[in-house]
Amino acid sequence: MSVTDELLANAERYAAGFDKGDLPLPPAKQVAVVACMDARLNPYGVLGLAEGDAHVIRNAGGVVTPDERRSLAISQRLLGTREIILIHHTDCGMLTFTDEEFRTAVQQDTGVRPDWSAEAFTDLEDDVRQSIARIQADPSIPHKDAVRGFVYEVETGRLREVKR
Amino acid sequence: MSVTDELLANAERYAAGFDKGDLPLPPAKQVAVVACMDARLNPYGVLGLAEGDAHVIRNAGGVVTPDERRSLAISQRLLGTREIILIHHTDCGMLTFTDEEFRTAVQQDTGVRPDWSAEAFTDLEDDVRQSIARIQADPSIPHKDAVRGFVYEVETGRLREVKR
Repeated sequence: MSVTDELLANAERYAAGFDKGDLPLPPAKQVAVVACMDARLNPYGVLGLAEGDAHVIRNAGGVVTPDERRSLAISQRLLGTREIILIHHTDCGMLTFTDEEFRTAVQQDTGVRPDWSAEAFTDLEDDVRQSIARIQADPSIPHKDAVRGFVYEVETGRLREVKR
Repeated sequence: MSVTDELLANAERYAAGFDKGDLPLPPAKQVAVVACMDARLNPYGVLGLAEGDAHVIRNAGGVVTPDERRSLAISQRLLGTREIILIHHTDCGMLTFTDEEFRTAVQQDTGVRPDWSAEAFTDLEDDVRQSIARIQADPSIPHKDAVRGFVYEVETGRLREVKR
């Protein structure tokens, strides 16, 4: 049995106990979270989110790229969110390599050099600030008064705010 | 008190009960999930995921754009994942507008037309297949034998597989 099959068995159990079929499309708490994809960071657990509460956007690093700006623009303009919470975390994989190394390795293995940046970074807090700056600079995202950035500590479970 | 402050109070409670400080960086189940950011879709609940299990990548629609391909390439090449689960869902906001409408509305409101596609779609299952096709076409993502796509039914809590 594949891991996917194992998780599908979990999904059947979830459906059997499901009682949330009437939740509206817009997030109840009017908040969007942008977080790293890291397996140890569970935004539902950390922030106490339940089904219906918040948009959750995630990628490698929790960095703001054009796709996160697209998602945030749709979240705010069409679905009413007003606050943004950015979460990077300690011991992040993005701290362990450089863009150049990653793209060169892909090129050596496949013959094709990626035409995108790997978005690696060397300083967690600086990259949170850079992600906030990218949001602030994007006219497609209308609500910017409540954009706050955090580092999640995988060692302690704590969330600490990044000072601007 | 802002919603962010309310969620930070939840985060303090999470940290107070935290006992998972020794989880390794690579996901234990060697799986990456790509899902819509929708508030009603909780991948942890649906798939029975716990901290440490899986990479979770999310955006508006759960569509595969260059940023998801970047995240999946990093997930597989550097952190050992081998299976991919794609999840779109019923009643998705992405079914309610077109790229052209969205970009024109932003242009009218801000003066600046987005230079990215909004990635709107008209058929859920076709868009899941398109996302799978984008993964299959990307040489940066090495492991493609276990890529499966699903539609989550927000009305019933069920996950149904999309046939190729």
